[in-house]
Amino acid sequence: MPSTPSHKAEVPFVSVDAMMRLVHRVGIEPFLVRLADAIEEDFRRWEAFDKTPRVASHSREGVIELMPTSDGTTYGFKYVNGHPSNTRRGLQTVTAFGLLADVASGYPVLICEMTILTALRTAAMSALAARHLAPPGARTMAMIGNGAQCEFQALAFRALLGVDALRLYDVDADATRKAMRNLAGKGFALTACGSPEEAIEGAQIVTTCTADKQYATILTDNMVGSGLHINAIGGDCPGKTELHRDILARSEIFVEYAPQTRIEGEIQQMPADHPVTELWEVIAGRASGRTSAQAITLFDSVGFAIEDFSALRTVRALLAETGDYDKLDLLADPDDPRDLFGMLERAAPREAAAE
Amino acid sequence: MPSTPSHKAEVPFVSVDAMMRLVHRVGIEPFLVRLADAIEEDFRRWEAFDKTPRVASHSREGVIELMPTSDGTTYGFKYVNGHPSNTRRGLQTVTAFGLLADVASGYPVLICEMTILTALRTAAMSALAARHLAPPGARTMAMIGNGAQCEFQALAFRALLGVDALRLYDVDADATRKAMRNLAGKGFALTACGSPEEAIEGAQIVTTCTADKQYATILTDNMVGSGLHINAIGGDCPGKTELHRDILARSEIFVEYAPQTRIEGEIQQMPADHPVTELWEVIAGRASGRTSAQAITLFDSVGFAIEDFSALRTVRALLAETGDYDKLDLLADPDDPRDLFGMLERAAPREAAAE
Repeated sequence: MPSTPSHKAEVPFVSVDAMMRLVHRVGIEPFLVRLADAIEEDFRRWEAFDKTPRVASHSREGVIELMPTSDGTTYGFKYVNGHPSNTRRGLQTVTAFGLLADVASGYPVLICEMTILTALRTAAMSALAARHLAPPGARTMAMIGNGAQCEFQALAFRALLGVDALRLYDVDADATRKAMRNLAGKGFALTACGSPEEAIEGAQIVTTCTADKQYATILTDNMVGSGLHINAIGGDCPGKTELHRDILARSEIFVEYAPQTRIEGEIQQMPADHPVTELWEVIAGRASGRTSAQAITLFDSVGFAIEDFSALRTVRALLAETGDYDKLDLLADPDDPRDLFGMLERAAPREAAAE
Repeated sequence: MPSTPSHKAEVPFVSVDAMMRLVHRVGIEPFLVRLADAIEEDFRRWEAFDKTPRVASHSREGVIELMPTSDGTTYGFKYVNGHPSNTRRGLQTVTAFGLLADVASGYPVLICEMTILTALRTAAMSALAARHLAPPGARTMAMIGNGAQCEFQALAFRALLGVDALRLYDVDADATRKAMRNLAGKGFALTACGSPEEAIEGAQIVTTCTADKQYATILTDNMVGSGLHINAIGGDCPGKTELHRDILARSEIFVEYAPQTRIEGEIQQMPADHPVTELWEVIAGRASGRTSAQAITLFDSVGFAIEDFSALRTVRALLAETGDYDKLDLLADPDDPRDLFGMLERAAPREAAAE
């Protein structure tokens, strides 16, 4: 007879459906704020974390990555792929799931969908960075690239900074129409633009979020005026950038984790010693953010494991409140831990046992 | 309304219970043979795989590891912990689960418990190595360390080599009694021994499998006579070994993946250039195995990602035959892949949507 799994063997599991229920229970904008707060808290204790560049397996079509970290008490990792050509086959460019485990026992304590959660935490991270870097009072954001990340960014920037005017552009007008439709009736002043140049008119913040796996120049130098904050989230693997290097040369550059960003971010175009500031230093009060109203600030964002950790622990805390999750029979848990074989044998079907 | 997940969003999931059903459906020994065949096949095409030492997160209590690999078509990784002190708290020393994904899309295609599967693949790997290295006609095996791995080793060595006499020893006599009980009535000649010295009397193969996270000397040099095959599986992380270095100096040493074994295996006691042979070279006919009847052969086994890959693809192939598995709603799969936000919004509960 199959034994009944004990509580130790059951790992809380948040499916896509459960994640959507959780987000709606909390509300999308409050959820984004909660994620940003958790990231800010974890960035403030940055030095408590094990940090390692992600472990990437590259192929012609894309990349599969594992992003582990630990704060000494809890371990977490995310599995995430990036396959730009997936869209053409009706698949997501990025899918992800994550895990938290108890460092003391090594037992997983949460397995969680992270396609939706990554979209939310990426937006929360962007808005958190902008809260520390953008010019005060910024209300208008240009969004170049209106794919899966676009609406999440819009809501996060409103929730954290009060941004309420959006100027949208995408090489694919269908993507812009999709974003306009999704953001309609939510209190934004929305403008669909015919070019990147038009999109950045009057914007204090520019978010670039395109998905081609190649060097591209979404923003050229002459488009970028003083005082702008650039939130560059589309350049996130070797060979994939969005900004002309002249923009980088003029900007105050902020990154998540320099060793990873120098490989994957916009700054892969710059010399290895080009000065950058890690955002956690700004958050912890150890470095300045924007130095003047005229400065161009650039958040060269590639996504880092600690942000996923923050997101997963936020979900875990919410589950403790809601109790709304499934449990996976993922861990073998024999009564006597040395007797794994006995557990397997006792699970033999009766007819076989009677042979 | 929650949308119904499409088939792309559903990841086949093998729970502990489903794994036990699968093993019994096939039979434990045929399952071990099937695993050994898959490992042998993959070791023969060793050069097709991405190989990287595992990514380990060490703590005072143990280690949490991610072990990724890819053959260019399929990607796999295993999450595994090693916490020797868990046993004292009624938990497993090692728990694990694994994943396979399609390299072309990055989409996971299998999530599978691997606590039981790792125990089986470790035993299959040991017996496969012994089939290439042990003296011909070996029938008697000493087993030093009678924990969770012991019975699996015994069955694998019988299934692959015809070993039918076992001499068991453990510092904890309860562990030996547990193994004697589990192996009784299975056609082995079983001897419980009072010391390691007694256990190796008359054995042609010695399997050492103890779990302390420290340098230990389970076998000393004077215990090891010529012609022996040593299957050393307990030394598997930095600072954890089982054999006296004098034994290593006298042995022909075979390893899975030298860069990893030099860090984790028995050979961490030896200079970094101490000669070893990777087992795949023997299997592929590129290097000799045992060179003489008098030689001492040592399989310094630490477990490598390709073995887990072989095990996971074996399970995946069996699932295609049995259809006996669950499906996890792990991947968000919007109708329009760029419209993740729209999918989330449409999942809002009706009462909220009506506000």
